[in-house]
Amino acid sequence: MKLYNYFRSSASFRVRIALELKGLPYDYVPVHLQKGEQRAPAYASRLGDALVPALQTDDGHLLAQSMAIIEYLDETHPEPPLLPGGALARAHVRALAQMVACEIHPLNNLRVLKYLKHQLKVPDAAKDDWYHHWVRQGLEAFERQLALLDRERAAAGLAPSRLCWGDAPTLADCCLVPQIFNGQRFGVDLGGLSRTMAAFEACMQLPAFQRAQPSACPDHE
Amino acid sequence: MKLYNYFRSSASFRVRIALELKGLPYDYVPVHLQKGEQRAPAYASRLGDALVPALQTDDGHLLAQSMAIIEYLDETHPEPPLLPGGALARAHVRALAQMVACEIHPLNNLRVLKYLKHQLKVPDAAKDDWYHHWVRQGLEAFERQLALLDRERAAAGLAPSRLCWGDAPTLADCCLVPQIFNGQRFGVDLGGLSRTMAAFEACMQLPAFQRAQPSACPDHE
Repeated sequence: MKLYNYFRSSASFRVRIALELKGLPYDYVPVHLQKGEQRAPAYASRLGDALVPALQTDDGHLLAQSMAIIEYLDETHPEPPLLPGGALARAHVRALAQMVACEIHPLNNLRVLKYLKHQLKVPDAAKDDWYHHWVRQGLEAFERQLALLDRERAAAGLAPSRLCWGDAPTLADCCLVPQIFNGQRFGVDLGGLSRTMAAFEACMQLPAFQRAQPSACPDHE
Repeated sequence: MKLYNYFRSSASFRVRIALELKGLPYDYVPVHLQKGEQRAPAYASRLGDALVPALQTDDGHLLAQSMAIIEYLDETHPEPPLLPGGALARAHVRALAQMVACEIHPLNNLRVLKYLKHQLKVPDAAKDDWYHHWVRQGLEAFERQLALLDRERAAAGLAPSRLCWGDAPTLADCCLVPQIFNGQRFGVDLGGLSRTMAAFEACMQLPAFQRAQPSACPDHE
């Protein structure tokens, strides 16, 4: 498999974690977003949205969208699973992932920040406020959701979670960890998010997360 | 089941379509976003992010995030399926859904437009430009992706699609249709998106989509 990605892209990072957790080897193909390499015709003509990441399967199909790619990897390489057993638990894990992927990350990616700066002429300080506002608000919601799920697990007689859901990494952890890296890079206040940060830190003890992190990427600058 | 939702919320609309496609009865619980009813403690205390939609299962569990809810419905009520058979096709359908849910919709929901207006003091005309920009750009990417998938289907000897993928409604159609309604409401130019609009119009021929539309909701204004 080939993963088209960028070391700093949160969505790329999600897929790298999943590949590492599954122990799947892949060719790392860097696409430098800051230099606009995603718009090169050889890449852009193969993808509707010309974003990263994209995963090329061994038989040449190109898959878009990080969460769709991770679900694909989980269906085609089931061990270790990145979704728990049981429809209810799976719904909770997918919802946590989507709280990051649909509520936080889209407001803070590079093309949005560029639009704020260039089209709307938003001053840098207000652009930073925008960034901090959505990440902080989204992570506070994430923290509350983890607390609600912890209570639900306790009521069902399940062991407390060390990670987002249980003790084995899931799609939710694949989404959370890159968002925390991103927040740290931009100086977001992560105080008071104790349950979320404990899950993050427990993930970062695991070699798969370490191997997938931006500083371990071949295109890291 | 109870669906907490708002007639005008695109994410709520996605889940209503899925429930109608599955033929599942549900209690419609309106949560008026413009009036801030989602922040009432009885609702907000049960959900990390206090957004709509949320689905309460018959045994009292509350599920968040529209795409997670639809995947849950598809796992617990498999007929008719909202994802195709085969991991590759499923990845393509999920990616189409996420092109709407992770790239277009998050930039245009009510809380973001309010932030532009109140915090960033963006004039109405520039706010409308923002809206039109992201919806148009996102739908152009969607149109290109549908064309790529049509070619992939043809190469694999599959029949041409009438909807987003094939002739049976999927998660991708559940996400596309509300986004088109939203774009139409805000006067986005939908010209030149012939494949996308053909899928939209084919969906709207189906009773399930008609029954789920905002004008058919009990809280429609």
